[in-house]
Amino acid sequence: MQEKNPIDSLTIMTEIVLPNDTNSLNNLMGGRLLHWMDIASAIAAQKHSNSIVVTASVDSVSFKEPIKLGDVVNIKAWITRSFNTSMEIFLEVWAENIPLGRKIKSNDAYYTFVALDENNKPIAVPPVSPQTAFEKEKYDGALRRRQLRLVLAGKIKPNDAIELKNLFLPDNI
Amino acid sequence: MQEKNPIDSLTIMTEIVLPNDTNSLNNLMGGRLLHWMDIASAIAAQKHSNSIVVTASVDSVSFKEPIKLGDVVNIKAWITRSFNTSMEIFLEVWAENIPLGRKIKSNDAYYTFVALDENNKPIAVPPVSPQTAFEKEKYDGALRRRQLRLVLAGKIKPNDAIELKNLFLPDNI
Amino acid sequence: MQEKNPIDSLTIMTEIVLPNDTNSLNNLMGGRLLHWMDIASAIAAQKHSNSIVVTASVDSVSFKEPIKLGDVVNIKAWITRSFNTSMEIFLEVWAENIPLGRKIKSNDAYYTFVALDENNKPIAVPPVSPQTAFEKEKYDGALRRRQLRLVLAGKIKPNDAIELKNLFLPDNI
Amino acid sequence: MQEKNPIDSLTIMTEIVLPNDTNSLNNLMGGRLLHWMDIASAIAAQKHSNSIVVTASVDSVSFKEPIKLGDVVNIKAWITRSFNTSMEIFLEVWAENIPLGRKIKSNDAYYTFVALDENNKPIAVPPVSPQTAFEKEKYDGALRRRQLRLVLAGKIKPNDAIELKNLFLPDNI
Amino acid sequence: MQEKNPIDSLTIMTEIVLPNDTNSLNNLMGGRLLHWMDIASAIAAQKHSNSIVVTASVDSVSFKEPIKLGDVVNIKAWITRSFNTSMEIFLEVWAENIPLGRKIKSNDAYYTFVALDENNKPIAVPPVSPQTAFEKEKYDGALRRRQLRLVLAGKIKPNDAIELKNLFLPDNI
Amino acid sequence: MQEKNPIDSLTIMTEIVLPNDTNSLNNLMGGRLLHWMDIASAIAAQKHSNSIVVTASVDSVSFKEPIKLGDVVNIKAWITRSFNTSMEIFLEVWAENIPLGRKIKSNDAYYTFVALDENNKPIAVPPVSPQTAFEKEKYDGALRRRQLRLVLAGKIKPNDAIELKNLFLPDNI
Repeated sequence: MQEKNPIDSLTIMTEIVLPNDTNSLNNLMGGRLLHWMDIASAIAAQKHSNSIVVTASVDSVSFKEPIKLGDVVNIKAWITRSFNTSMEIFLEVWAENIPLGRKIKSNDAYYTFVALDENNKPIAVPPVSPQTAFEKEKYDGALRRRQLRLVLAGKIKPNDAIELKNLFLPDNI
Repeated sequence: MQEKNPIDSLTIMTEIVLPNDTNSLNNLMGGRLLHWMDIASAIAAQKHSNSIVVTASVDSVSFKEPIKLGDVVNIKAWITRSFNTSMEIFLEVWAENIPLGRKIKSNDAYYTFVALDENNKPIAVPPVSPQTAFEKEKYDGALRRRQLRLVLAGKIKPNDAIELKNLFLPDNI
Repeated sequence: MQEKNPIDSLTIMTEIVLPNDTNSLNNLMGGRLLHWMDIASAIAAQKHSNSIVVTASVDSVSFKEPIKLGDVVNIKAWITRSFNTSMEIFLEVWAENIPLGRKIKSNDAYYTFVALDENNKPIAVPPVSPQTAFEKEKYDGALRRRQLRLVLAGKIKPNDAIELKNLFLPDNI
Repeated sequence: MQEKNPIDSLTIMTEIVLPNDTNSLNNLMGGRLLHWMDIASAIAAQKHSNSIVVTASVDSVSFKEPIKLGDVVNIKAWITRSFNTSMEIFLEVWAENIPLGRKIKSNDAYYTFVALDENNKPIAVPPVSPQTAFEKEKYDGALRRRQLRLVLAGKIKPNDAIELKNLFLPDNI
Repeated sequence: MQEKNPIDSLTIMTEIVLPNDTNSLNNLMGGRLLHWMDIASAIAAQKHSNSIVVTASVDSVSFKEPIKLGDVVNIKAWITRSFNTSMEIFLEVWAENIPLGRKIKSNDAYYTFVALDENNKPIAVPPVSPQTAFEKEKYDGALRRRQLRLVLAGKIKPNDAIELKNLFLPDNI
Repeated sequence: MQEKNPIDSLTIMTEIVLPNDTNSLNNLMGGRLLHWMDIASAIAAQKHSNSIVVTASVDSVSFKEPIKLGDVVNIKAWITRSFNTSMEIFLEVWAENIPLGRKIKSNDAYYTFVALDENNKPIAVPPVSPQTAFEKEKYDGALRRRQLRLVLAGKIKPNDAIELKNLFLPDNI
């Protein structure tokens, strides 16, 4: 199967924070952002696999800075690496108050999708060929993150998560 | 500050999967479920802290079984443990096709919230006093999950995540 | 057909009042609450009948206390009695401002549903077996409310609404 | 206070039934229609009172004919009578499949609203001056329906609901 | 094919401006109004053609007066003229703050629709027979507006847009 | 006031066509697309002016190809030219069925916005400095389109629309 570049899956989404998206402090509710990120990353996964995709997992997403009512939210999503039928998508989120000239990096996140055929069965997706140093860094880290997901889901034992385990071993630190 | 029981924060949410919540296979989109879970867990965190709350992080959520158009989604959220100004909320999600008599456990998840005062500043929340064996198990695990969150967010070094590290050490396995 | 208990149909729904749900006094619009109550009671009717259901009628619903923007709305719905193919569902609604520690009973309501098969034809549903004193009270009143519905819909004559008529007869007062 | 005619409050609303408004039989959910009727009648009550209004009660609404996905829903609302600070609004609902040339009367309903000033306090509204025979019939019936509402809400005793009681007395039938 | 009158297609739509429809100045966003006008005019086009319709084009719409949060928006749509398979719909929009007694004409617009059969193929629609002076004026202008649309879409040359060209010729001014 | 380049205002929006966005042929309704284009172009106008903006007018938009349920819609918006307090935004819309590998250009459009200060008063915006041949072509055409808008809005006489008039004069053709 032909390799594809991360840039081929690049998806850019722009949204405005409306009243119904906010809590009583006029901050964007986390759940709304999680929803937007899911749509952006699903489109990126579709672009890489040219197939229907479903969300398989969402990695630890942390929300550092509040995003305010009226802000423009900018989401950038692209594939870091594929594993047979699954794809890890990396997302970066910025929030911008354009009239005030304020722009902040809100957060990063990783979503994982599985490609499906028309009968709901997983199908293989193309390998990823990272081009830039940043893409290669994300490509390498993807294996470790995948092991963490599998450990947390109880699908492999910590001892078998080689790359992840190295992170915690004495000689690694 | 007076301890509170997990059950005091119990929040039950029931939703029906409508057409706009689904993808072209008529499966519930992951982002919609992430949104509902955020609202359910925010209410649970409000109940525990009696304050305004904001989502701080979402842990690895995995989606095992597809939820279908027309299914009833049932979400149960309650607090496992608090850490000064933050609260970890545990969620269980079921999906049910009532006419067909089919009910599945869709997934578990952990959301973390921070309590805020009216000036957007974090404020202390009550400690949690687990009562049942299951609540105690969740209470104990909360420390390990918190360390993992802090490692992944780059806020502490792997070597300082004592409970987490034990999971990967040779003599632990 | 096997009797079922009211508790088997119990449905709990939790919603947050968002800006689009309110009027210019920041009060929840009645129509939004009617919509939520319809969904909660439809799920309760599905649980009792294990079939598709449609709303047949809504009884006099009165709105006493305003529910405010940001309040958590809690709806509890369960079946009181069935009449061949139709089911009466009883609803209780509370509104809660959790940070302020204010909780009010907003209102009660009765919705009636008809169970349908896949060809849109009404089908018989199980009888209800009330267990508690409160369930029995609701069970008994259901007959009188049903006669009122039929009189108002012009389907029976006031004279034939025996239980209802007794309410207005001299010797009843 | 100057009398106003029912026609001055006439409000016409037209909506299309979209997928999210329907159940799994592609029928309009009752709750959605209750929501639309609430908005239409609130506007009619605003027109009569020239003030902010809140829903006070909804009378027995029955749904006879299913309304289908894609149908055009037409709602006509106007005031029948006012009682100091409250107004009874009469609604007629039609559903139309225009390409098929099918048009049905779906249902009638009565909603009651209270006029409020800017401090959420009820204020007096103009009397209604019915013009046509149909408007007069609705005007007369409004008193009986109001008594029924008050009896059902437990605010007056059945014995005091004179007009209503007559309906059930032997010599009335 | 039998001629039809403009009044047969008359469609009246009433909406309330809710928070999510507004920008940070609490003014109705133009896009929301464009959306409502599209639905109102689609229904008018359905009524004239008794068929499914799709939006073909939207003419220059200008927004003069801001419409505010809480305003009631009233849209009136009817057909001016048909051209084989297409129909031009004229819309008038008013905004009203009923409690304040303020009512403004917001704008006029023209939308064009094409009638389709079940295979997505354009089908002929009835001619329009204007009755009033205003309807006749709109009927006559429709030809000039159509030429402008065709010129702007590059489908005819300016020289062939006879009626339109006259507008700019020396002896016309 | 410092000139700005068109690229500084470039806004990219990506949306998925969901069931509620479509008509009974599963085609995207024109009004929904008009709404999305309004949001995308409002953000582009904000980026150019660093101020709050309101839609002033929408030029002839034509819809050539149906966009289908599940398609990914891609909207690209940037400023062509400013006129004191107003800005013309050019939009290009593509629709893509990614699994089928089908991508079509749906349509082009022009939206005009006015920049406002916090008191709702128009304020001057920076001039545009077109860089590429395509940007220059759009910059030049903007004057002609503006004259057409003013003629259609009755604000100038056809005879005063010099650039536009040339288009229809005999020696121009």
